[in-house]
Amino acid sequence: VSRWKPDSRRRLQDAALALYAERGFAEVTAAAVADRAGLTERTFFRHFADKKEVLFGDEAALRDVLVAAVTAAPPDAPAAEAVLAGLEALAAHFQERRDRVVARAHVIARSPELRERELAKVASWTEAVASALRDRGLPPPASAVAAEASIATFRAAFRQWVQGPADRTLADAVRGAFADLSGFVRQDRARPRDRP
Amino acid sequence: VSRWKPDSRRRLQDAALALYAERGFAEVTAAAVADRAGLTERTFFRHFADKKEVLFGDEAALRDVLVAAVTAAPPDAPAAEAVLAGLEALAAHFQERRDRVVARAHVIARSPELRERELAKVASWTEAVASALRDRGLPPPASAVAAEASIATFRAAFRQWVQGPADRTLADAVRGAFADLSGFVRQDRARPRDRP
Repeated sequence: VSRWKPDSRRRLQDAALALYAERGFAEVTAAAVADRAGLTERTFFRHFADKKEVLFGDEAALRDVLVAAVTAAPPDAPAAEAVLAGLEALAAHFQERRDRVVARAHVIARSPELRERELAKVASWTEAVASALRDRGLPPPASAVAAEASIATFRAAFRQWVQGPADRTLADAVRGAFADLSGFVRQDRARPRDRP
Repeated sequence: VSRWKPDSRRRLQDAALALYAERGFAEVTAAAVADRAGLTERTFFRHFADKKEVLFGDEAALRDVLVAAVTAAPPDAPAAEAVLAGLEALAAHFQERRDRVVARAHVIARSPELRERELAKVASWTEAVASALRDRGLPPPASAVAAEASIATFRAAFRQWVQGPADRTLADAVRGAFADLSGFVRQDRARPRDRP
């Protein structure tokens, strides 16, 4: 791999984010992104399948960050602790790039096509977390539920972080969301019909 | 509204489901769906925007079923009880149409485009549940978390129902998934770092 490649990739990602924010995703071509980055269209397509995928180039790397932390939690730690470790690792990654992550979220929110692609990414992360929980010995049905509910809770926290004050960290928002989830579920267990 | 309209609509939905299952979504045109239903392409487009939307014609009606049950729960019932009432109403609707619902789920699972559209539908239902919880007085952040986690849990239950034995009801699967969620969250609260 030659040395210029990572740089081209990042320049294309930056150019795409800037152009999509300025003009809207639907109005921008891959050629325009390449041009803004000072690269050829051919180089664009060497890195990304299309103008949508340029915003999702980190999907697999971030999934690995998430799964690695879930896997690295002590074997006897509760599943929820392992998942929270994974989500905190993801939160730290996003926190370091706040401006970029928020800009990307706004671009995605404005495009139905990108929103649907983003949801597919989330589904892929969810399955990866479920798989990591199965590897930790949690039964498959409970792993699926835990992964779905945890990623959903993270998404709610992420939206609050994007929309909220810049001095609230994503990790704080994630912990707050899990506290909300806990309150919600506890009420459920306390409802009268569960009592003898 | 003339009397034949609901019938055309249903015939188009049945034809689409059958054709997509036989040939795959990507291989079927709106004209072929209309032809299978014994109707004109013009009639197809009077009912549905495109060949994708024919599978999502019930999206708004089912969202209303869900929200109506959340709203109808006693005002002093815990949020979780209200949400569960909504999900049980949805489960009953799906249970009555099991074969059709399962066939639709398999068609969607095989098409990336339909999977992404399905996820967008789920996002719209989630927002509707969050809105209903806000109307019940739950704070907005907790409403968002509760709605996201509940719909996610329902989705996990739905998949287990689709893949599982035909004699297990969706309502059973939903209750089982909420029990799994409860176990997961309780472990979280019991983890050592939360203790003084």
